[in-house]
Amino acid sequence: MDKISTVAIVGGTHGNELTGVYIAKKFSNNQDLITRPSFSSQVLFGNPKAIEQCRRYIDKDLNRCFSRADLQNAALSSYEDTRAKEIQKILLSPQGKPYDVIIDLHTTTSNMGLSVLLSSEHPFLLRLSSYLSSISDDVKVFCSPKSQNGVYLDSLSDLGFAIEVGAVAQGVLNADLFQKTEKLILAALDYFEGYNQGTLFDIPSTLTIYNYIGAIDYPRNARGEIEAMIHPQRQFQDYQPLHPGAPIFITFDGQEISYEGTSTVYPIFINEAAYYEKGVAMCLTQKKTVTIYHPKRERQIR
Amino acid sequence: MDKISTVAIVGGTHGNELTGVYIAKKFSNNQDLITRPSFSSQVLFGNPKAIEQCRRYIDKDLNRCFSRADLQNAALSSYEDTRAKEIQKILLSPQGKPYDVIIDLHTTTSNMGLSVLLSSEHPFLLRLSSYLSSISDDVKVFCSPKSQNGVYLDSLSDLGFAIEVGAVAQGVLNADLFQKTEKLILAALDYFEGYNQGTLFDIPSTLTIYNYIGAIDYPRNARGEIEAMIHPQRQFQDYQPLHPGAPIFITFDGQEISYEGTSTVYPIFINEAAYYEKGVAMCLTQKKTVTIYHPKRERQIR
Repeated sequence: MDKISTVAIVGGTHGNELTGVYIAKKFSNNQDLITRPSFSSQVLFGNPKAIEQCRRYIDKDLNRCFSRADLQNAALSSYEDTRAKEIQKILLSPQGKPYDVIIDLHTTTSNMGLSVLLSSEHPFLLRLSSYLSSISDDVKVFCSPKSQNGVYLDSLSDLGFAIEVGAVAQGVLNADLFQKTEKLILAALDYFEGYNQGTLFDIPSTLTIYNYIGAIDYPRNARGEIEAMIHPQRQFQDYQPLHPGAPIFITFDGQEISYEGTSTVYPIFINEAAYYEKGVAMCLTQKKTVTIYHPKRERQIR
Repeated sequence: MDKISTVAIVGGTHGNELTGVYIAKKFSNNQDLITRPSFSSQVLFGNPKAIEQCRRYIDKDLNRCFSRADLQNAALSSYEDTRAKEIQKILLSPQGKPYDVIIDLHTTTSNMGLSVLLSSEHPFLLRLSSYLSSISDDVKVFCSPKSQNGVYLDSLSDLGFAIEVGAVAQGVLNADLFQKTEKLILAALDYFEGYNQGTLFDIPSTLTIYNYIGAIDYPRNARGEIEAMIHPQRQFQDYQPLHPGAPIFITFDGQEISYEGTSTVYPIFINEAAYYEKGVAMCLTQKKTVTIYHPKRERQIR
């Protein structure tokens, strides 16, 4: 693979996810923090109007507007559709190629720690994730299929990924998560620099990945109204095993509803505020361990 | 004092505070739960349009629209100003008096447990609070002065109060807090019924109250932008003592900012999402113990 020459860090793709907004502000005002000798970095505010109003979006979710078809569809003219087309243009390098790496910053009301959300199991992204997970125990790696993530902002780049941190409420800055997220981004930039320079990294030889297998909605009545909540035993238990028959929801009358699947899964995005309207109470994943491919210039540990 | 004849339970005064919205829905669909022999109960959805859009408000904060002057000002015509005038009319009893009791349901991103927010130290409200605090250790009692709370919905009634539960993100249902809040409301209704019937209650003879003494904003630059976050040691520490010189904020560069007050205070509403725009990082309170007046028909304990 060629060297990394351009990196974009995007905050406020969702305007009420303040960690990303304020990290982007910090980097924007302190460009030296993200400057490295071997590549150029750019900070971008995803949805300025939503940031101003501290809302997720104005007309529609910006982070679902990046399919190739939608970007080419001139008839789509909502604020976010227009903004998506602007962002696509902004994130072209001087050579007219998309930026090599896009890091899109998000937060969640789910207890997902420092999650790295991959668009593919590209060897470079797996090595990067392995490096990041060696830095903090809070790092978890989630991978969703192309069919799903082709609508995301970070899909503009083959090496795009999102950092999703939580649990934190929308519209709130949590200092601890702010500092941990910033540290993670700077570590990723250091990794890119090291990669470009041929530096040796200590990287675990295996990596745990959580692969998307589906989503579960809240129980709803015929009018689409929610009829049950996340069960207290499941709340904030992201990345923990959910076994067949375990309680998953509880109705407003206190009736427990059990998980009807036939095998153990690992739910994430449990009770994410923004997913109520998307019909998602949690995403289900399978946990797997992958072996990390090590180019000769990287040193393998563990 | 006369008997309680009319009680209103209001959910969704802020449309994205789902606990209140869904408790109001439950009570609305199960009127028997809130029916008592000696008084009539009504459920009201405060801000229907904001509930539909899962936003705090449409044009302005409904729970700041209830000053007598604003309610009489025909020139105020925003969605919430209009709704406030409607609510004032709805909450008139058949005798043309305001409802005897209004319970307004709120949630907060601050770690305030089950807070009872009083508009005054009316002996009836203090006895009620004392009873409720004997039911759950999570109950805390906060009292703010008339000069401040005259704009709240619950100020329509002399015996109005709010129940403020947290920590929970906006747009999220937390089953544990839902169940605790419902239990608290039902206990209050039982108390009203007992009061009307002259039933003996076991009520602690003293009550801890947190009295509002002021608010602190986030450090901001000349453009009004936030320059620091709640210090990690202070996050989620509502109702815990804040001593002079203790860290209170931390800048984006990691510089600690200490509390400059000269006496120990008890902050609440720490890092409440909706208060960023109001210039409030936390409210400060003084903690005091009051002796509860016991009419002869109530039995004193402790």
